[in-house]
Amino acid sequence: MKKENAIGVFDSGIGGLTVVKALMERLPTESIYYFGDTARVPYGIKSKDTINRYAMEIAKFLLRKNVKILIIACNTMSSVAFEMVQQISSVPVLEVIDAGARKAIRESRSRVIGIIGTPATINSNAYARKIHSYDPNARVVSQACPLFVPLVEEGWLDHPVTRLTAQEYLRPLLAENIDTLVLGCTHYPLLKPLLREIVGPQVVLVDSAVAMAERVAGLLEEKGLANNASLPVEYRYYVTDVPLRFHTIAERFLGRGLGNIELINLPL
Amino acid sequence: MKKENAIGVFDSGIGGLTVVKALMERLPTESIYYFGDTARVPYGIKSKDTINRYAMEIAKFLLRKNVKILIIACNTMSSVAFEMVQQISSVPVLEVIDAGARKAIRESRSRVIGIIGTPATINSNAYARKIHSYDPNARVVSQACPLFVPLVEEGWLDHPVTRLTAQEYLRPLLAENIDTLVLGCTHYPLLKPLLREIVGPQVVLVDSAVAMAERVAGLLEEKGLANNASLPVEYRYYVTDVPLRFHTIAERFLGRGLGNIELINLPL
Repeated sequence: MKKENAIGVFDSGIGGLTVVKALMERLPTESIYYFGDTARVPYGIKSKDTINRYAMEIAKFLLRKNVKILIIACNTMSSVAFEMVQQISSVPVLEVIDAGARKAIRESRSRVIGIIGTPATINSNAYARKIHSYDPNARVVSQACPLFVPLVEEGWLDHPVTRLTAQEYLRPLLAENIDTLVLGCTHYPLLKPLLREIVGPQVVLVDSAVAMAERVAGLLEEKGLANNASLPVEYRYYVTDVPLRFHTIAERFLGRGLGNIELINLPL
Repeated sequence: MKKENAIGVFDSGIGGLTVVKALMERLPTESIYYFGDTARVPYGIKSKDTINRYAMEIAKFLLRKNVKILIIACNTMSSVAFEMVQQISSVPVLEVIDAGARKAIRESRSRVIGIIGTPATINSNAYARKIHSYDPNARVVSQACPLFVPLVEEGWLDHPVTRLTAQEYLRPLLAENIDTLVLGCTHYPLLKPLLREIVGPQVVLVDSAVAMAERVAGLLEEKGLANNASLPVEYRYYVTDVPLRFHTIAERFLGRGLGNIELINLPL
């Protein structure tokens, strides 16, 4: 495995670009290949069988591109398909749920941790199981927030509708006196300023994208896979569809323009 | 073609069940086969090429089941893929946009007609073109409402968030003094009571599902294809995925329980 090989990141759509953004900031000498399954997004409302099948297809696609590490940036795929992807992968596989759970455990003092995510992520109970594997005494309070993804994609990041929706979704968590809130979906970091206002200054917000970038940096060092050369890095974006408003939304997630976008036809 | 053959209805997901419901009420002696592409929903954010490809696959599937008429219940597919489906179909093809446009023309007195739908439907301009083909002097005012589908699927049919969202989306249409509003998405009939409150009693709401059932009844009579026998009817539901909360949401659309659901694997 060559150090110059790219980091492979995949997601059901464009949300995983928040992980790419965090990786670019934390690891500026690493190339990154991103796969977004924009033709079949969203995964959060699909069955486990379908999610598993799609995740395997995408992992194989990136492995054929010789990535040195595979990152599942989608919470839904992480919660459902991680073990299956790990079984077929010749390179290390990381997933956002583990990264977020570890960070939540480090941050929480009261051990009452809130989780928000898509219905599939929350129903999978993956965050609660992962947190309990690190701390059996932690109390985990979960809430599915199905409207947050469409609200972010509509660009209503600081809109009265989004505020009212967030107040309703977060009310039961705040009633349980959480001191840490895990943003268990890659779309949610864009709502951080609004969520911060609602939860108040005493609750720690755990951004899984940032947590993941820290984990990747540690693992690459540990395995001797970090690219220390000052070669020009390469960013590639593979997508299965280029829908309406794709560039606008994608750039909102990435915080910069997208260069090299390649349209990949299904089936993979 | 036998009169006992079923009516084929297809949609990107479960929204088309509002058309099935209207058909069951208007044509109680007809069998209905429904195809909902629940693994690949929503289509409203996909490109035209992808929508065309999926629509053709589904149409061929239903034609193999010997349906006597094909109904495109999805506004997005109607606006993009109608001509292509018609070219390969051996049976008559109807689509919701034509049905809705005809009804709007009949209902409007001021000739100022509002259209609401998904971004793909609105950007296709299909309703405006269809209405102008019947009445070149009509004025059409359109508004994309990307949050309505997730709000309906969340079940927030009479929720302050939905009210606030609808007020924001409908404000520009009401400012133009529309006298008729076409609900250009199969999910929207579930919002009728709330939309009625916002637009007031003077604006006619055109429900495409009801308009379609009337068109189908007329066409079957005209072609001598109406099933007048009092045989037991058969309702079949083909879906490409059975996601979380499928039955709950589907039954909300259909207004009754679903019987015979068959899971169809992709690719078709």
